[in-house]
Amino acid sequence: MTTPRNLPLEGLKVVELGHYIAGPFATRLLADLGAEVIKVEPPEGDPIRGWGSRHNGHPVWFSIHGRNKLSVTLDLKKPEGRERLRKLCARADALVENFRPGYLERVGLGPAALHQANPRLIIARVSGYGQDGPYRDKPAFGAIGEAMGGLRHLTATPGVTEHAPPRCGVSISDDLAGMYAALAVASACWGVKGDPAAKGRVIDVDLVSSVFSLMEGMLPEYGLTGAIRQPAGSAILTAAPTNTYLCADGKWLCVAGNSDLIYHRLMTLIGREDLRDDPRMADNRGRCANARELDAAIGAWTRTLPAAEAQERLEAVDVPCSRLFDMRDCAEDPHFRARQTVMEVADPLVGETLLHPAAPFRFDGIAPREMVRWTGPAVGAHNDHVFRELLGEE
Amino acid sequence: MTTPRNLPLEGLKVVELGHYIAGPFATRLLADLGAEVIKVEPPEGDPIRGWGSRHNGHPVWFSIHGRNKLSVTLDLKKPEGRERLRKLCARADALVENFRPGYLERVGLGPAALHQANPRLIIARVSGYGQDGPYRDKPAFGAIGEAMGGLRHLTATPGVTEHAPPRCGVSISDDLAGMYAALAVASACWGVKGDPAAKGRVIDVDLVSSVFSLMEGMLPEYGLTGAIRQPAGSAILTAAPTNTYLCADGKWLCVAGNSDLIYHRLMTLIGREDLRDDPRMADNRGRCANARELDAAIGAWTRTLPAAEAQERLEAVDVPCSRLFDMRDCAEDPHFRARQTVMEVADPLVGETLLHPAAPFRFDGIAPREMVRWTGPAVGAHNDHVFRELLGEE
Repeated sequence: MTTPRNLPLEGLKVVELGHYIAGPFATRLLADLGAEVIKVEPPEGDPIRGWGSRHNGHPVWFSIHGRNKLSVTLDLKKPEGRERLRKLCARADALVENFRPGYLERVGLGPAALHQANPRLIIARVSGYGQDGPYRDKPAFGAIGEAMGGLRHLTATPGVTEHAPPRCGVSISDDLAGMYAALAVASACWGVKGDPAAKGRVIDVDLVSSVFSLMEGMLPEYGLTGAIRQPAGSAILTAAPTNTYLCADGKWLCVAGNSDLIYHRLMTLIGREDLRDDPRMADNRGRCANARELDAAIGAWTRTLPAAEAQERLEAVDVPCSRLFDMRDCAEDPHFRARQTVMEVADPLVGETLLHPAAPFRFDGIAPREMVRWTGPAVGAHNDHVFRELLGEE
Repeated sequence: MTTPRNLPLEGLKVVELGHYIAGPFATRLLADLGAEVIKVEPPEGDPIRGWGSRHNGHPVWFSIHGRNKLSVTLDLKKPEGRERLRKLCARADALVENFRPGYLERVGLGPAALHQANPRLIIARVSGYGQDGPYRDKPAFGAIGEAMGGLRHLTATPGVTEHAPPRCGVSISDDLAGMYAALAVASACWGVKGDPAAKGRVIDVDLVSSVFSLMEGMLPEYGLTGAIRQPAGSAILTAAPTNTYLCADGKWLCVAGNSDLIYHRLMTLIGREDLRDDPRMADNRGRCANARELDAAIGAWTRTLPAAEAQERLEAVDVPCSRLFDMRDCAEDPHFRARQTVMEVADPLVGETLLHPAAPFRFDGIAPREMVRWTGPAVGAHNDHVFRELLGEE
């Protein structure tokens, strides 16, 4: 199926009982890293295949979301389906699932049953609220993880009440939970590698705590003083000046001037030596306290120039900045192309050469393009290969 | 220093040459997972210690950001400092660094030099733009990663021009890069475990591609049709109805009604059987095309009720929803407390019992509280332990 490329997880065997985003994203990352991932789908396919645009009848996103995976179909409501799942688990190192808590137990495939098939199996369970606690059985979606984990409160813009605080624009809580599940699986597999007496363990990752894990010092600060972190819109409260500024052509420019040296260069460039040398602005703490004044000074300068020219001038004096890239900016950018962060991949199912994003980790000697062994497969595309060759069925 | 708790990475040795967020977050995760992490700081300490609020003279966030790590101080500008670093690397499995590309080479501590000290060392390098490509040497900050990776373009609210698109409110690009670096390190360590002939490899993770990795199907969709995903504010374009709605008491309520069954229950609850039975709304695709009409119907209902009551009624019919939790909501929530997602941890340095968030992954038989072996240490707190006991210096 694949030639060894010295990817780090080559030889690791993972079964995915996933649907939608969080579980499948965890295994996509493990597959990019070289693991053999067998995605188990119901006969009608993972419902995520119905999301987003289609081309030649096939979902475009799934070319990425399902890449490097084997797809098999099983009906877990039928005894033959469950028996095949147990056989897949018997030869696997790990299983990743993101059913609602209790579902697998109800169909006779809970951890106890799976550990009968394979006592070493590492079982990672991804869910909205986790496998226990009072909200365990509440239905959960990614948006709820963002809201309960504290993130959505923070995307508001102070003073704006006529619009709801926006999403991040992507399924961030599913993505974060998937990333943590992948990390927990890789770590648990490291822990037992080479230990014949190892017992398979059960991992519990939930969307809400995955989001909540990014809340920096806000929790202990609330506990000590009762202070509740409030949203700051496009500003950053702990580092100044850093904000997004309107330019003469109506475009936004993000500028990060929050180190002493960069601050000095920035203020010199915009002709505000008075602020550069102001003792109130000598360190980050003082600049944070006076961020509004600094933002006004920088914004007054950016409004005199088109975004591209402002960016050029800032970069000439080594001040970090960027306009807000949309998908065309990303796709056409020379750095993205030079690094193969954006690359062309032929997708035989979709019938086109598609743009794929690189795996977000690179290993010396392996080009990102090489890490895409194949694109997202059709539902059940590997039934024969898996059931006959891997499970040895007649 | 610590009693074994059967954490998955117990026995893994990691050196951190990190500062600020991305590198140290990667090793915080590895430390939570049980690895021995030695954080190498300059004599004046990681500058992140100057961020956020202080209590009894100590930075509060660092209680979490530095937890489960050993802190040693080295001056890498001096030969003795570099020599000690090489000795630390000689006994380690992995090193995580997030200096600007080229810095380590300039001080004689690039991968070639480190592999002389330990040919098996896995070296993870985290940077803004990566270790090569035309932008390699540009200065980078988290905000730039968000902007260039495509995320900041998506947090805009359609029609709003008087405010810049907001941040997610946290250092999301550093966090994502840290998570990917941790995953790549754990995977690389799995790959070489038990192989005496293994060669240490170099991992390259950058903030921009870490953010870009979350862009779902937007890249191939652009490549095929030229369509550029536009921001949708609080709505989600691929699933409807899901949005955040204003309630009678001025609070916002996030409602995720985007499966056929949930949609039916939701429309019955709000008395819109006409929309429930409307053939245009029979599947997610049709509902996405008519999302505005559905949002208006749901918003008309939420505006008649305080958020808490609306949430109660929605939950009674199993419709996922949540108000937007702020830090008090998280800290006081019974589910967060029951799961130890929020827990009390005595911090001897800060001199208080602090609230800590759980590690975002749980392992059966280990309570989250047990995974915090100690809180963030003072600068150089473990110099004696590490230099004498671990390195065997006189």
